[in-house]
Amino acid sequence: MAKKGNNPTMNDVAREAGVALGTVSKVVNGIPVGEEYRIRVEKTIKKLNYRVNSYAQGMKSGKTRAIAVIMPNLVSPYFASLVNSLGKTLAARKHYMVFFGTDYDPDQEQEYVRLAEQQKVDGIICLSYNPRLELSEDIPLVSIDRYFGAKIPCVSSDNYGGGYLAAEKLKENGCKCVAMLRIASKLPHEPAKRRDGFVAGCEAMGLACDQMNLEDGAPYQEFVDFLHAHFHNGKLDYDGLFCVTDSVAYQIRGTLKEMGLRVPEDVQIIGFDGIRQFGDMELVCSTIVQPVDAIAETCVNMILNTDPGQIPSLLCLPVRYECGGTTLK
Amino acid sequence: MAKKGNNPTMNDVAREAGVALGTVSKVVNGIPVGEEYRIRVEKTIKKLNYRVNSYAQGMKSGKTRAIAVIMPNLVSPYFASLVNSLGKTLAARKHYMVFFGTDYDPDQEQEYVRLAEQQKVDGIICLSYNPRLELSEDIPLVSIDRYFGAKIPCVSSDNYGGGYLAAEKLKENGCKCVAMLRIASKLPHEPAKRRDGFVAGCEAMGLACDQMNLEDGAPYQEFVDFLHAHFHNGKLDYDGLFCVTDSVAYQIRGTLKEMGLRVPEDVQIIGFDGIRQFGDMELVCSTIVQPVDAIAETCVNMILNTDPGQIPSLLCLPVRYECGGTTLK
Repeated sequence: MAKKGNNPTMNDVAREAGVALGTVSKVVNGIPVGEEYRIRVEKTIKKLNYRVNSYAQGMKSGKTRAIAVIMPNLVSPYFASLVNSLGKTLAARKHYMVFFGTDYDPDQEQEYVRLAEQQKVDGIICLSYNPRLELSEDIPLVSIDRYFGAKIPCVSSDNYGGGYLAAEKLKENGCKCVAMLRIASKLPHEPAKRRDGFVAGCEAMGLACDQMNLEDGAPYQEFVDFLHAHFHNGKLDYDGLFCVTDSVAYQIRGTLKEMGLRVPEDVQIIGFDGIRQFGDMELVCSTIVQPVDAIAETCVNMILNTDPGQIPSLLCLPVRYECGGTTLK
Repeated sequence: MAKKGNNPTMNDVAREAGVALGTVSKVVNGIPVGEEYRIRVEKTIKKLNYRVNSYAQGMKSGKTRAIAVIMPNLVSPYFASLVNSLGKTLAARKHYMVFFGTDYDPDQEQEYVRLAEQQKVDGIICLSYNPRLELSEDIPLVSIDRYFGAKIPCVSSDNYGGGYLAAEKLKENGCKCVAMLRIASKLPHEPAKRRDGFVAGCEAMGLACDQMNLEDGAPYQEFVDFLHAHFHNGKLDYDGLFCVTDSVAYQIRGTLKEMGLRVPEDVQIIGFDGIRQFGDMELVCSTIVQPVDAIAETCVNMILNTDPGQIPSLLCLPVRYECGGTTLK
């Protein structure tokens, strides 16, 4: 056992745990080993109060163990839950997260990408709204939702499948005539496929389908005007609405209430994201749930994977439907 | 002007902007200079595409420009908005944020504090739930909400004042008999003073006041049982409730609805925090709003201030009341 007062070394840990030095090194570096070995090494690390000298480690390996996460903000619940999950996943892999909030400002994004590069982070995970983002080729980057072309891997939910699923669920719930309410980004953004999937799903199921595309930045009032234009004698032309996000669904629900319509009895609504009140209470609406933890894990795996042969240009993860009170079931 | 193809230096920027080298250095390091100078230097930096070599800078100054932020999670809207604001404030001061989520696990907290120390961050901003957190004296630390004693500065809202304000507002809104619903932490936590302020406010205004203290970790059902024990012939004994957080207020509102009581007509509710739906929509309830941006700015100022003489052991920032539909006004 290590002498008291001295900092124990990795060798001390290996000896005390009765495992090879390489096994300790793997555990310390977050590389998978057998469960039994991992537990034994972690217990010994605690017992000996072994501290990884990550500064020395970084000098040796040329790695900083820092991953930059660049996202619009943490105030929007979807971004917050994604960053929360990224932080946990990185910590489990013995990396740490440097967070940058861009407020959707393309110049800020570019500045933070440069700053991350200057800080010699090991990788960047980015949800970008910059149409002309310049990227260095020195540092691995994984994009969430935004498609940059074949060279930059993009991870997202299966947005097309989610749109299709929303159409199926509205049909199952007895809807006869539906519409999609959408905010249309000008950038090649994966969430745009929610519409394509929804339209395809409606077609496949013989469900009459309309759509309202709000330009990004246009006032919400245009959705209200659209609904009023399709409102005659106390009835809406649609008995089902698919909203591009839970945030839109939440607002639409309020608008329908003001129009004297009952949700879900008169009009059923499905959103997209899977937002819960206060982060962990009930769903805000019936919704297509994005697999946040799986997205985070996939991004981290890609960033930390040193074999570029295994990295696809687009990887879509399965979504699921959950009833949150704005549909019959 | 700097030659094309060469990286411009700080000297090039000073010459082009027609200012002293020290002024450029101040702007780059986030130290206040006259507004006119700041704008001129920033424009020139952009024009020349001058890039700060922060790695070299760190080597020279012994500073990493990294500040660790340690908090339970980003899923709870209050923590998310606080971390969002800390990130922005640090970026404006040319520092960056390393985020660690603890999930309220005391061991995780301790590990992250150690990790931050190992990473040689310039400071730690921490919202801790660890009763025995061990801190190094080498790295400045600012605590949010949790009081550690005279040596560690603690920044929080004026929780006492907020409780007092809640009592005043319930009185102004015509309440005759009120209760506080509270989750009691065993740690010396600033939010505990919400009760003290509320009780003092009720006393000062001659408002009958009861309280229900839920032990931390006890099920929410105990609040429901408390309300039912004070429910006779379709009427609640209280016409006003002060809830320790907006999250509790939100749940209580649902429970009262299930009991057939109208909010705010039969019972008025005030929460604490200032949470908005989806981060930027309407308030979840009438509430005492915490000054999130001011808290973030104060923490950052304290961490970056090198003159310890100016740092108090506790600094409470003013809160304000906002009606969010669960009170009459």
